Amino acid sequence: MYKTIEWLDEKKAIRLLDQSVLPGEVRYQALENVESVFNAIGNMTVRGAPAIGVTAAYGLAIAAFRESSDETDAVKAAVQNASQYLSAARPTAVNLAWALSEVIRRVDQSDIESADEYREAILSCAHQMAQEDVDINRAIARSAMTLMPAEKVTFIHHCNTGSLATVDYGTALGVIRMAHETGLNVHVFVDETRPRLQGSRLTCWELNNQGISHQLIVDGASSHVMQKFAVDMCVVGCDRVAANGDVANKVGTSNLAAVARANGVPFYVAAPLSTIDLNSPSGHAIEIEERDPDEVRIINGTWVAPQNVNVYNPAFDITPADWITAIITEKGVVYPPFTDGLRSIKEA
Amino acid sequence: MYKTIEWLDEKKAIRLLDQSVLPGEVRYQALENVESVFNAIGNMTVRGAPAIGVTAAYGLAIAAFRESSDETDAVKAAVQNASQYLSAARPTAVNLAWALSEVIRRVDQSDIESADEYREAILSCAHQMAQEDVDINRAIARSAMTLMPAEKVTFIHHCNTGSLATVDYGTALGVIRMAHETGLNVHVFVDETRPRLQGSRLTCWELNNQGISHQLIVDGASSHVMQKFAVDMCVVGCDRVAANGDVANKVGTSNLAAVARANGVPFYVAAPLSTIDLNSPSGHAIEIEERDPDEVRIINGTWVAPQNVNVYNPAFDITPADWITAIITEKGVVYPPFTDGLRSIKEA
Repeated sequence: MYKTIEWLDEKKAIRLLDQSVLPGEVRYQALENVESVFNAIGNMTVRGAPAIGVTAAYGLAIAAFRESSDETDAVKAAVQNASQYLSAARPTAVNLAWALSEVIRRVDQSDIESADEYREAILSCAHQMAQEDVDINRAIARSAMTLMPAEKVTFIHHCNTGSLATVDYGTALGVIRMAHETGLNVHVFVDETRPRLQGSRLTCWELNNQGISHQLIVDGASSHVMQKFAVDMCVVGCDRVAANGDVANKVGTSNLAAVARANGVPFYVAAPLSTIDLNSPSGHAIEIEERDPDEVRIINGTWVAPQNVNVYNPAFDITPADWITAIITEKGVVYPPFTDGLRSIKEA
Repeated sequence: MYKTIEWLDEKKAIRLLDQSVLPGEVRYQALENVESVFNAIGNMTVRGAPAIGVTAAYGLAIAAFRESSDETDAVKAAVQNASQYLSAARPTAVNLAWALSEVIRRVDQSDIESADEYREAILSCAHQMAQEDVDINRAIARSAMTLMPAEKVTFIHHCNTGSLATVDYGTALGVIRMAHETGLNVHVFVDETRPRLQGSRLTCWELNNQGISHQLIVDGASSHVMQKFAVDMCVVGCDRVAANGDVANKVGTSNLAAVARANGVPFYVAAPLSTIDLNSPSGHAIEIEERDPDEVRIINGTWVAPQNVNVYNPAFDITPADWITAIITEKGVVYPPFTDGLRSIKEA
């Protein structure tokens, strides 16, 4: 199987599966310095909040190994600088900042004597976070199994939240994958997720690799699909959950939630605890990244709109807590009122 | 200015602006026989319920002129055959069937003596319907002016409902155009309308030609736009209104209505009386056309999804009457309960 993120120990570099050229091409990219890690996150060679977090953690290891000084403090300073630099690569997902500070926090707690020990500690912590990500995803999926109907389950899924968005297994797609692995009869309506088409390009590719039944739809077709077919639930990932339960996720999530609500379909968010940000009181406090207008104007090198057209291209949106049925974490399912539930599960 | 539909009297043919290649290219296509009219409707060289209706009406004129017999009955039979054939070109919009039967109904009411008189009567009736379409659009827009705020109005618009979707002026875009012409400060968020991108390709092109301020968004961004900006209303066209007020329109309309409802934004449907179908009791009775999966898999000749992916591609959807604030017709604005309001305005 394909690996989204891998550490190349001889080169002290990251090998990424280039998500911008899938499914047409399976191409890998080696990141050998901190700038290339920044760019790979910014241009979406790697995307998905958990995958971004782990890539950034390995980015700190690259920074540590590239600093040639024998002084532990010099290596620490290089890692600190890299952390600050990388945290600005994308603003909305909280995992990026969380993973960077978490690596440094954990390493600072251990006894380090030499620069080399520090380097190895950073790397080992990045490895640990990669492994934790897989474990957390499986735990989220296990939490969700209590929500499944008896034999047959039909999902609508937005964006990509699978192996490609994580180190492995996936968040929302992990839920779908486990439903399939536990023997349920699964069908997934995959929305294409304009502008970057993560649904058509990445999610269909993953579901096909896993042998899970699916159909691609345009983003605007979800209401019709809910009216025509028995859709059991929508399940999506998230980039950040505010303390009140508002969710920042890929643009179109808020639309799908509104459509689900209007059609009486449950709407679930699969959220590792690392995405819950008790410091953001509500969605209003979350910065929404705006991306290049050409993402909307040009598809695969071809203009699909007048070349001079003014575009508003937010990469994310906020789904109000009221529109969410429950938030699925690795420690269990949180129901409204979210303010209490999220605080207690996060602090447990 | 560009003309969507024109009758070429010397050739006894229709000249259509080819909407499938806009905005990259302004190309016209001449339709000289009934088969090419059928194909132009089916492959969306011409689209938009009112434009389809008028094109089909001229299609009957082509059928009449192509029939070389001197017998009036032979020409009548050719027109009847063409009507039956053309009515199957697309199933969802009621204007197509309505326009075809309306032309024949009107001509049958007049005294016809010769085959040539019959041919001229069919053509003159098609001309009449083209002119009526422009008049009706302006009347719809005038009805809508009572709904406008005082100085400044921000719209979200779906698909294309402008000059290109009609003979001239437009239905929902006619409302927007008149708001601009009457001196309001207008801004339009144009959703791109996957899969055929009528928003990006056609609506942006029209608004730019008319000097109306606009921004292109992906279909999934409308909830975020409503949360971030002061959107006054959504306004859309329609292909068919059922007797209870359920509306069939371009796929994505039902999504936009659900999003508007969840965000407290008024949702208006601009509907010529010819689209109100009292014979369809509700949206369930309306056949929804499914189109080629490649419309979703391929954009401008490039694959954007795995080539073998299973696609569900409905061309239209049903917006439940409950999600609609009001229906704007050429005879005034109809508010809920729609069953009574639509019947009385249609039969008035």
